[in-house]
Amino acid sequence: MIGNLELMKEISRSSPTKIVLLIIDGLGGLPNPQTGKTELETASTPNLDQLATKGICGLTDPVSPGITPGSAPGHLALFGYNPFIFSIGRGVLEALGIDFDLQPGDIAARGNFCTVDEAGLVTDRRAGRISTEKCTELCQLLDGLVIEDTKLLVCPVKEHRFVTVFRNRDLSPNISDSDPQQVGVAPKAITALKPEGAKMAGIANEFVSIAMKVLAKHHPTNMILLRGFSKRPHLPTMEEVYKLRPAAIASYPMYRGLAKLVGMEILPTGATIEDEFSTLKQNYPNYDFFFLHIKGTDSAGEDGDFDRKVSIIEQVDSALAGLVRLEPDVIVVASDHSTPTLLKGHSWHPVPVLLYSRWCRPDRVSQFAESACLFGGLGRFPAIQIMPLAMANALKLTKFGA
Amino acid sequence: MIGNLELMKEISRSSPTKIVLLIIDGLGGLPNPQTGKTELETASTPNLDQLATKGICGLTDPVSPGITPGSAPGHLALFGYNPFIFSIGRGVLEALGIDFDLQPGDIAARGNFCTVDEAGLVTDRRAGRISTEKCTELCQLLDGLVIEDTKLLVCPVKEHRFVTVFRNRDLSPNISDSDPQQVGVAPKAITALKPEGAKMAGIANEFVSIAMKVLAKHHPTNMILLRGFSKRPHLPTMEEVYKLRPAAIASYPMYRGLAKLVGMEILPTGATIEDEFSTLKQNYPNYDFFFLHIKGTDSAGEDGDFDRKVSIIEQVDSALAGLVRLEPDVIVVASDHSTPTLLKGHSWHPVPVLLYSRWCRPDRVSQFAESACLFGGLGRFPAIQIMPLAMANALKLTKFGA
Repeated sequence: MIGNLELMKEISRSSPTKIVLLIIDGLGGLPNPQTGKTELETASTPNLDQLATKGICGLTDPVSPGITPGSAPGHLALFGYNPFIFSIGRGVLEALGIDFDLQPGDIAARGNFCTVDEAGLVTDRRAGRISTEKCTELCQLLDGLVIEDTKLLVCPVKEHRFVTVFRNRDLSPNISDSDPQQVGVAPKAITALKPEGAKMAGIANEFVSIAMKVLAKHHPTNMILLRGFSKRPHLPTMEEVYKLRPAAIASYPMYRGLAKLVGMEILPTGATIEDEFSTLKQNYPNYDFFFLHIKGTDSAGEDGDFDRKVSIIEQVDSALAGLVRLEPDVIVVASDHSTPTLLKGHSWHPVPVLLYSRWCRPDRVSQFAESACLFGGLGRFPAIQIMPLAMANALKLTKFGA
Repeated sequence: MIGNLELMKEISRSSPTKIVLLIIDGLGGLPNPQTGKTELETASTPNLDQLATKGICGLTDPVSPGITPGSAPGHLALFGYNPFIFSIGRGVLEALGIDFDLQPGDIAARGNFCTVDEAGLVTDRRAGRISTEKCTELCQLLDGLVIEDTKLLVCPVKEHRFVTVFRNRDLSPNISDSDPQQVGVAPKAITALKPEGAKMAGIANEFVSIAMKVLAKHHPTNMILLRGFSKRPHLPTMEEVYKLRPAAIASYPMYRGLAKLVGMEILPTGATIEDEFSTLKQNYPNYDFFFLHIKGTDSAGEDGDFDRKVSIIEQVDSALAGLVRLEPDVIVVASDHSTPTLLKGHSWHPVPVLLYSRWCRPDRVSQFAESACLFGGLGRFPAIQIMPLAMANALKLTKFGA
């Protein structure tokens, strides 16, 4: 059986046509109990609606029905990479999230500063959510340690969160977490999950005991918890798979990191939606694939702020007009998952998707919205099929089989 | 995991009910920019619409979303054979296309007469698309060669195209093409892709150098290019899989060849649509499965002739009345892929499908058309599931599991 990427590798071809993949993070929602309308249905979106009218709509399952994806599997699927085959460890994702440049061999772990009592039992896994400034100070106490032949880099993330990178080309990340994921118990000893993890388990345990001594007088941040030991995975690049020259525009580091993993060129951009769209415009001649990531919708969803999510969707809609004027051959508007403000978090609900190209077979959908997309010509389909559809509509795929 | 064919083998049973699979090649289309209607939506099709009203409709993906299939994978899927598992080489398909009776062990290659310059670089991969008569003359110069223990058969196809068959039971087709697929470079030396291909690579290279000498004075057809070396694949027959007595009616040889590969009996027929339907009528008592293939729609699509495609669909619709009067237990109207006249070629767009039987659960679709099928009871599904649905509706499948 041939996999998705192997098939694309076989039949994709380079061409001058251009694809824009606009990802509105956490786009899908749930109806506001007062109005019966979702965030997207509430927003005034004349430009999206016009694209929906000329294009073809549908609903995607990011991973599979009922499954709520994290950001990594959600985006891998959007890029056409099966998230059940390619996985990204928690440590690596956290490192990508602070723009940390992982070297080959680096093992990254997600860390928490936490509180333990006199008996050594965890009483608060987040040490009262200390400030990021405090976290930065504590990281400096631990950064730069050398254990055996391994250098440790300890970098703050946000509040109680940090990243530890173990720099050594010959270690295996196949070790267990120290984070027990509950209070009232002691941090767990780290053990090798496979024989080749033995040395790394020893180094990680040594780091934990050094940290315990260093932090002893820093109550409530008197201990650390580590989890998600992982190496940067090797993924075939989008150039190898699709013969594209791909560029990523994302104001949040984690999404730049995910794009870098599949070989996209990262374009420097500003913090606002307008900044991102104007970066695309400036770089339009130089690439044939653009991943443009909008973070605000997901953040508003996680904060449970319905009106803010509506407003960000409307900002994206306004900015879209300039993108349409560039006349890309294919525009896909999609998302990595739903983030309904009612749920204040990622969810499993299918996600509205819109594809516009000269060669799509238009349907009767004239509004970009969850309820309208249900009757769209793309039907309901796995997000991993978005890239093959975009490539087909850009006439970048040759025939399969004789 | 049990495969599609294994499942059918396990639960199919022989019964007197009859299935007709009417394939209107390249049926799916794109809207005419002037009218907003596809070829099928433009055609007046009272008989198809009546079947759609009494039956159940949907849209199929021939291979998978975004993928444009060749004729072979498109038809294998219609017969229920996974086109990612069973593949048919270019050489074999070309041989099937001229009704060449491939023997076990035969290796077929697709050939082009081409032009090379004094330095041996290809200047025209098609030698100016010479006439079929000229091609036939040139093939006679090369036909019947014996290289080592292998007899070569060289048969004209059309214009610059020919087939070479290497007759020997013990050779492997695991060798590379000589066709570089571009001009300005020399034809490539043929090499073994696996060790067992070594002998065959030698014979193929020897054939190329003999051809070069023979053709030296025949500018612009002074060289050949070979590709798609392949053997007739072994496929389980439809009798083995479905316990059917299947017959094929197709005026074009390639489709007869594909039907033969899955063990269908080939019924001699004439060139017109009426001929094909009357062949079915005459042979109706003798088989319980009929594959009836209409080629004209695909040809019109490839020629970009919207009106001709509409007219052929209308001819099929007229002929359908006689078929309905035979009262087959199941009638499926489907296609191997879309061939929109706007694109002048096969495409990835999903294909309308209609299933009529006494036991289908009718939907509200009353017109056989792309836009209407979107709301059909069959939904959108892979073409490989058409055969299980046809078998079920013919009450030819027993229960799965206890």
